[in-house]
Amino acid sequence: MAEATHEESTHETRPDESPLHVVAPAATLRTAVDVLGALVDECRVQFDEEGLHVAAMDPATVASVSLDLDTAAFDTFDVEERTLGVPLERLDDVLSMASGDDPVSLALDPETRRLDVAVAGLDYSMALVDPDAIRSPPDLDELDFEYEASVVLEAEALSRSIRAADMVSNHATVGVEEEGEAFVVTAEGDTDDVRHRLSGEDLVDIDACEAESLYSVDYLRALDRPIPGGSEVSLELGTEIPLSLSFEVADGAGHVEYALSPRIARR
Amino acid sequence: MAEATHEESTHETRPDESPLHVVAPAATLRTAVDVLGALVDECRVQFDEEGLHVAAMDPATVASVSLDLDTAAFDTFDVEERTLGVPLERLDDVLSMASGDDPVSLALDPETRRLDVAVAGLDYSMALVDPDAIRSPPDLDELDFEYEASVVLEAEALSRSIRAADMVSNHATVGVEEEGEAFVVTAEGDTDDVRHRLSGEDLVDIDACEAESLYSVDYLRALDRPIPGGSEVSLELGTEIPLSLSFEVADGAGHVEYALSPRIARR
Amino acid sequence: MAEATHEESTHETRPDESPLHVVAPAATLRTAVDVLGALVDECRVQFDEEGLHVAAMDPATVASVSLDLDTAAFDTFDVEERTLGVPLERLDDVLSMASGDDPVSLALDPETRRLDVAVAGLDYSMALVDPDAIRSPPDLDELDFEYEASVVLEAEALSRSIRAADMVSNHATVGVEEEGEAFVVTAEGDTDDVRHRLSGEDLVDIDACEAESLYSVDYLRALDRPIPGGSEVSLELGTEIPLSLSFEVADGAGHVEYALSPRIARR
Repeated sequence: MAEATHEESTHETRPDESPLHVVAPAATLRTAVDVLGALVDECRVQFDEEGLHVAAMDPATVASVSLDLDTAAFDTFDVEERTLGVPLERLDDVLSMASGDDPVSLALDPETRRLDVAVAGLDYSMALVDPDAIRSPPDLDELDFEYEASVVLEAEALSRSIRAADMVSNHATVGVEEEGEAFVVTAEGDTDDVRHRLSGEDLVDIDACEAESLYSVDYLRALDRPIPGGSEVSLELGTEIPLSLSFEVADGAGHVEYALSPRIARR
Repeated sequence: MAEATHEESTHETRPDESPLHVVAPAATLRTAVDVLGALVDECRVQFDEEGLHVAAMDPATVASVSLDLDTAAFDTFDVEERTLGVPLERLDDVLSMASGDDPVSLALDPETRRLDVAVAGLDYSMALVDPDAIRSPPDLDELDFEYEASVVLEAEALSRSIRAADMVSNHATVGVEEEGEAFVVTAEGDTDDVRHRLSGEDLVDIDACEAESLYSVDYLRALDRPIPGGSEVSLELGTEIPLSLSFEVADGAGHVEYALSPRIARR
Repeated sequence: MAEATHEESTHETRPDESPLHVVAPAATLRTAVDVLGALVDECRVQFDEEGLHVAAMDPATVASVSLDLDTAAFDTFDVEERTLGVPLERLDDVLSMASGDDPVSLALDPETRRLDVAVAGLDYSMALVDPDAIRSPPDLDELDFEYEASVVLEAEALSRSIRAADMVSNHATVGVEEEGEAFVVTAEGDTDDVRHRLSGEDLVDIDACEAESLYSVDYLRALDRPIPGGSEVSLELGTEIPLSLSFEVADGAGHVEYALSPRIARR
């Protein structure tokens, strides 16, 4: 029914002749927008036969994100290889009109160069951003660090660690204790200190090795917020190197990796 | 029990000797206050043997409302014909003390000229406003426009249309397509456009005829907000004439009609 | 499991050697912090073999609180007699990390003189306040007023009374009618008056005697807010003397008494 309405209401956009026409559940697109919106307002979305890929870095160049959505994340995926500059906040507004898993259609209008977003009776014609005007993401191959330890834990446990640190400081030390095989987040405030330590059954998995670095709590919060509840998050850690957080989206058909640069220790 | 408490607690107001004593479920009165409060802070409420009637126009004279509550909407309706000037916000405060469908008693105190509002143990003595000091509503018979089309749709569908327009602009074109028998709301923003189109099973009924006018989105939102969820809303439309929105309240014992003047097209 | 994690994570605080180590459900501690936080930011908490006792007065010396938690409110209660100066807001922050009835451990670190707060993997080291720097509470024995009437009612009924008064004024008269055996709260605003009257089955108990005093509505709201839903509240009232509100916490293992000074009548 919703699909039928869509077909009827978008006849002007002629998806069949569009160089890019994809349909995905609203929830999948919302997660993608949340993940990217944690760091940037607009981004370059690359479409090719394998799916959609986005790489972006926040304006302060402290954190980067890499998002992949395979074609399996889409109900329809009919694209010629191309890159679109997408304004995330406006796309988020449109997606807020969808309920649950309503199918959302995105079609590039070859004449207007706009993105036609259609969901259950609603047609939204969105002006795109010139991809060349968007900051180039870093070459991720250059960011291939030697991680010393890795941890897999529930999204909720990671959130607790970050909330705990946030009570006392703007900076948190994130690390792994080799002895005890524990994931440890600590923060030192002006008067109070906090330490959140997870080991054994509180972790999904750990490859322990002594490692710790200092990170901005505000960034940790920003990266933690879009992680879907119930997810398992994989962390790769080292000493004075970026923290890597990765998790799956779209029932495994999508993959997100955040990298967060360490702060220089102030104490 | 609540009723007994009420009888006991309001003995001073002597409802039996009051020239006006009505009792209605809190939910009914709250809806009425919401409907009127969308446009005015105070209003003239006319009581007669058929029930209660209010006509009012917002200070900018862009929108008007006509509300009727039949005696069937009340548990008790014992009034001499008269008009009260009611401060809506204070009445809303008192009604917020009632839960669910608590019976609320309104009695005019013949000595103090105040309205005694009683609900479950609470007596609120409300100073009324001089009805002559309240802006005269327009003579609604003069506002008898030649509507070209009419649409009946679910309140939720209308809300979606208005929310969609609100994403891109302060003005929305509301109209009917004769061919396709569709209800269409469109809005043009600085960069993006939006179109919400409903036809067939997405509408309850339509009497299609080419018609469209431009309206303020802020007013559409204000008029849409008090419409009870699950209601059917009847729209009467034309070209460059006011939009009429009407719906039932109080399980059919009440009727609301809003009229919203068109804006002059700016593009 | 949570307990096991706790034992492991707090090994550095050596609770066994601490002069003070208690464990209580998070909900119990949260209620205590809410009750005290209504009046003060920090307070002197006295521990002895019978349990925990706090007496405090708000900075404007208008209201005081007395809180007792018996040892039965604790899962573990192993203390040497002493008084701690506790910063309530920071303790509230830590407790917000606990879910439901998670056991929370408080242990005084004999070396750092800090309070180690531990809950499910989280260790928070809290700097205490010098008890001598905290305002001395009044000697409560001097505040032994001759109350004339007493009322027991549900927390929700008291809240309604206070909300009702708050609609029209900053001051409310709280009293008891001897005839009619009723608890009555009245308030007079610039234009409107309100009266909330409870008697018979709307009260749990009443020992009626003519009595009434005027109180600040803001203070009544502050004292009412932390009262746990579903509680019975005992009021002791007189004429131009403080109002006493008392209620149980921690399933009867704790007791709270607030005393609120009357305002001089302004009308």
